Amino acid sequence: MRAVDLIHKKREGEELTAAELAFLIEGYSKGDIPDYQMSAFAMAVLFRGMTARETAELTLAMARSGDQIDLSPIQGVKADKHSTGGVGDKTTLIIGPLVASCGVPVAKMSGRGLGHTGGTIDKLESIAGFRTELTREQFFAQVNEIGLAVIGQSGNITPADKKLYALRDVTATVESIPLIASSVMSKKIAAGADAIVLDVKTGSGAFMKSVDAAEELAKAMVEIGTEVGRQTSALISDMDQPLGFAIGNALEVQEALDTLRGSGPADLTDLSIALSAHMVVHGGSAATHEEAEAMLRERLSSGAALAKFREFVAAQGGDPAVADDPSRLPQAEFVIEVKAEADGYVQRIDAEELGLAAMLLGAGRATKEAVIDHAVGVVLRRKVGEQVQAGDTIAVLHASRNDESVADVARKTLGAYTIGEERLAVSPLLLSVVTAEGVKRFV
Amino acid sequence: MRAVDLIHKKREGEELTAAELAFLIEGYSKGDIPDYQMSAFAMAVLFRGMTARETAELTLAMARSGDQIDLSPIQGVKADKHSTGGVGDKTTLIIGPLVASCGVPVAKMSGRGLGHTGGTIDKLESIAGFRTELTREQFFAQVNEIGLAVIGQSGNITPADKKLYALRDVTATVESIPLIASSVMSKKIAAGADAIVLDVKTGSGAFMKSVDAAEELAKAMVEIGTEVGRQTSALISDMDQPLGFAIGNALEVQEALDTLRGSGPADLTDLSIALSAHMVVHGGSAATHEEAEAMLRERLSSGAALAKFREFVAAQGGDPAVADDPSRLPQAEFVIEVKAEADGYVQRIDAEELGLAAMLLGAGRATKEAVIDHAVGVVLRRKVGEQVQAGDTIAVLHASRNDESVADVARKTLGAYTIGEERLAVSPLLLSVVTAEGVKRFV
Repeated sequence: MRAVDLIHKKREGEELTAAELAFLIEGYSKGDIPDYQMSAFAMAVLFRGMTARETAELTLAMARSGDQIDLSPIQGVKADKHSTGGVGDKTTLIIGPLVASCGVPVAKMSGRGLGHTGGTIDKLESIAGFRTELTREQFFAQVNEIGLAVIGQSGNITPADKKLYALRDVTATVESIPLIASSVMSKKIAAGADAIVLDVKTGSGAFMKSVDAAEELAKAMVEIGTEVGRQTSALISDMDQPLGFAIGNALEVQEALDTLRGSGPADLTDLSIALSAHMVVHGGSAATHEEAEAMLRERLSSGAALAKFREFVAAQGGDPAVADDPSRLPQAEFVIEVKAEADGYVQRIDAEELGLAAMLLGAGRATKEAVIDHAVGVVLRRKVGEQVQAGDTIAVLHASRNDESVADVARKTLGAYTIGEERLAVSPLLLSVVTAEGVKRFV
Repeated sequence: MRAVDLIHKKREGEELTAAELAFLIEGYSKGDIPDYQMSAFAMAVLFRGMTARETAELTLAMARSGDQIDLSPIQGVKADKHSTGGVGDKTTLIIGPLVASCGVPVAKMSGRGLGHTGGTIDKLESIAGFRTELTREQFFAQVNEIGLAVIGQSGNITPADKKLYALRDVTATVESIPLIASSVMSKKIAAGADAIVLDVKTGSGAFMKSVDAAEELAKAMVEIGTEVGRQTSALISDMDQPLGFAIGNALEVQEALDTLRGSGPADLTDLSIALSAHMVVHGGSAATHEEAEAMLRERLSSGAALAKFREFVAAQGGDPAVADDPSRLPQAEFVIEVKAEADGYVQRIDAEELGLAAMLLGAGRATKEAVIDHAVGVVLRRKVGEQVQAGDTIAVLHASRNDESVADVARKTLGAYTIGEERLAVSPLLLSVVTAEGVKRFV
């Protein structure tokens, strides 16, 4: 088999076999197939697409390229959630304890963030003492005992995907549905979950700009999961503005705690419950989504979810008292208000710009080596559809300094808001759901 | 400017500017742009194509990547010919002296061959004493004096094209009309000719399998030449079987001499005259193609073309007596007849297979380092449309040994012939002509 022939075959729109895709991915992993052949292949895939079968085979080949976690020492249906990424997305902090409190085990491997804000691991490390380096045995034992553990991605998960993703990034071959879908799903499959719930964002702040595009990606991912025997479903949600109010590590933990207490922002609560309901149904703790949602709302109002969070933090060496006293989280020295300059309605909030603002304050990493400041970030006071008057505080910066660079971030934050005379309709948060049975639009 | 953005732009089907194409080619030449970006770009071009303007700009950028020969020390309109390659194609050996005998200067830089048979330089080196390493001054002086010189490609002509071509070869991005056209034309333009006549082969033995595809390539090349101010025209000719009878270096020189004497094979004579006529018209020695063809046939019958060959060989240190006594060319020790095994008509001759047969005898190079045996090769005795009887000699091998490996070549040669009961129509040699004015089909 020669790589050039397989590139040619895909270029001509033919379907590759499992053996051919495995040859490409294994060869690329080992360095036998050079970057210049793989980038030409990726470009051919971008133009020609892949069948559902090919996409699944590609995914499995990438999943096999590194460690594959065997979660069988954990009892029950292990459910995992993946988000295509969004500014202010702290749902994992909520969903973990919430789903675990319904008796569905959550064995989560999570990453550190590069870009706007930290990843789930960075957020959890806002909590004094919290450790994410457990051995595999400790990890399994903790999930079996309390139903929840979150560890940093260790070992060598899907190295082929990492290498291919870096290559696609510099060869204009990112925007291919089968390549995006196989990248996401290879990691989830290698991480060993039995059930996978996908949170696919759409809108101006997301990679998928339209509901149609988001659904197409969701369908590809659900098809892969179904093809390889994992229960998979996807929710399409709106990302025209940040989720919740807080952007920044400790600030997001605090907002997650509010949500677990039942007093969080409506959008964050609704999305967390919707995603959790899928996990609870896949996990077998509820027969229907309605039943699951009722159970989940009860877990929030009864304090059971917050109790699970306390238990989880304590198990991983963290200070469980933060659950009841958020002032124990790192606090920024300076709190700077950003004020509206005109009267009107908030018509648009540029999530990307706010993510960048938080990163400039120190909440995220511009480079892999950068150190995160857990205390800093941006908290929104007004969201789309709300009325403001000139002089109203529309956002608050939490900063470790108060100099000209922070004034720049304040201007950037103000610039992320579009305030106009007209009150525009707010798009609903949940747009559609994609399962093995098909697509159901909510709106 | 970033390469990834230019790949993206082409991927989206947009037109690149001259500056953008120059950035890509210069960056690739210098090694600033890696292979993996260039291969993704080539694949995007393969899918999206290029406008005539883009193709011309790409060609110029590649022509600028190395030495550009200034032929202005040579008087008159310098005409050059390029063939897209074919088994048994010795037209350059004929056209050079033939066109020069009409007063149009031919300053030819030619290559050595890799593959089936040698290149023009290898063929000329069959002649004892023939030197192809002239200084540029000697080269110019010889063309000014006798109207013809042929030297090996020296210096650093279009290194960007060489690098890109090697990359395309291993990334399934060869079959792109703008990339093929710019590759050919960049070399011709850098070599400095004022007029360029292209011999585009089509048929089973050629890269372009259909007349339509060959015309498309011819149009792209004529457009480039016209765009950059070179008189350019192209002839589309059939390559369903080898041109003439001889395949192998000295054997081809001998056939070229027969043709210059006016007694060569009809197909070779006709194609040589047709190509030469374009050069003579471009060069201003004739007003019309009819006038040019009449002049050229006169040069063959009068012995003027053969005399020019003698003069040319002598000027470059070779033995001019070969022109009158071909037995002075290297002769193979063994002559082995290949006989038909059945009665019928020759329906098809696989030119590729015969080229391979000649190479296996030692006429061509399987690797860059291989040494050519000038004496060996294959001479056809029957061509498509001719009747044969079992036991008739259909081809003759000229070999330096007579062992089992030569018996293999004999079997391969026999296998290249398809002999059947029906006499199939022979396709005409000249199919169409492409000039700046448009396409004219002959059939």
